[in-house]
Amino acid sequence: MIYTGELSVATRGRGTYDITRDVVRLVAASHAKHGLATIWIAHTSASLIVCENADPSVRADLEAFAARLVPDGDRLFTHDAEGPDDMPAHVRSVLTQTSIGIPIVRGELALGTWQGLYLWEHRTAPHDRRLTISVIGE
Amino acid sequence: MIYTGELSVATRGRGTYDITRDVVRLVAASHAKHGLATIWIAHTSASLIVCENADPSVRADLEAFAARLVPDGDRLFTHDAEGPDDMPAHVRSVLTQTSIGIPIVRGELALGTWQGLYLWEHRTAPHDRRLTISVIGE
Amino acid sequence: MIYTGELSVATRGRGTYDITRDVVRLVAASHAKHGLATIWIAHTSASLIVCENADPSVRADLEAFAARLVPDGDRLFTHDAEGPDDMPAHVRSVLTQTSIGIPIVRGELALGTWQGLYLWEHRTAPHDRRLTISVIGE
Repeated sequence: MIYTGELSVATRGRGTYDITRDVVRLVAASHAKHGLATIWIAHTSASLIVCENADPSVRADLEAFAARLVPDGDRLFTHDAEGPDDMPAHVRSVLTQTSIGIPIVRGELALGTWQGLYLWEHRTAPHDRRLTISVIGE
Repeated sequence: MIYTGELSVATRGRGTYDITRDVVRLVAASHAKHGLATIWIAHTSASLIVCENADPSVRADLEAFAARLVPDGDRLFTHDAEGPDDMPAHVRSVLTQTSIGIPIVRGELALGTWQGLYLWEHRTAPHDRRLTISVIGE
Repeated sequence: MIYTGELSVATRGRGTYDITRDVVRLVAASHAKHGLATIWIAHTSASLIVCENADPSVRADLEAFAARLVPDGDRLFTHDAEGPDDMPAHVRSVLTQTSIGIPIVRGELALGTWQGLYLWEHRTAPHDRRLTISVIGE
């Protein structure tokens, strides 16, 4: 059985957005007991991560780390057509995930207790982001 | 055909652990001739990588690189509830893989000659890590 | 339905190579209307990325970023059997993707308008790279 779902996320600018519940809901709608859910984000300046879901300071620190590793307005970058956060957004995207595959076991995603699924918006301005969730299962 | 296997790895603390043989064994148990094996680790402070499998110095250098890129006890980090290696472990996890999908061709994983599959423990203390291997095939 | 395709790419040394068209062609050959395409590269010194496909300066900047983050000949590295770009190639590979899963929706890959799929050769010398594309669909 193959099931395809779509998800839209309106971001308020740079930061992480918990999409765990939305993905769980789509996987439940597929009625798959065993199989694989693949989450895809159709952008190159926002990405996907699996991250600790209990303490928000983890994601704040992650944001601080990314800002230091790939500084906005870095003079190394020539591509700045959309502003100082344009090229850093592409780099952050390449260093994280555009696609994540999660096994489905006994009707549930194989997420550990502390795992959450997040959309990471890398642009400073709000954006509408589109995701596809593909379930292959039985 | 969908087959789900589970794997536990008791780590002795930070470092890489070769899980290639365990994954190959589970894929063989599925009897899939063609398809896809997805390996998932249910944690956010240990991750998965595909890495050169011949010279252990590659993984020692990788560890040295990660220690320099994301230093333990970095003052940038506020999340240190579990110690100086707590937040660096989450960052290392986000920069590598929680999920890896590998095609199965003629009954074997499509691994290249020099490719090994490793669990990378990012915490300095030993941990029990749980993985799920999902095979979709025929 | 499971379909497996293979792809060879002769690189001219370090840089990004657009493989979108080749992957689209193989997915079309599978005749899958819905499902999942997984692209696998059988190497540890070349990798896969999804990147902005309109302005080549994005990929030039990405290359500059990688060269600064993981410098060739870095004295941190002990593994240099194949030259100063040997270990940096392995690190770049670990920080990007060896496997990418893309949903297939209504017969097409769920790529966004600005998304391209690239092989990133991390070695300075030309190499022959082998990829496997696995399609599971109906």
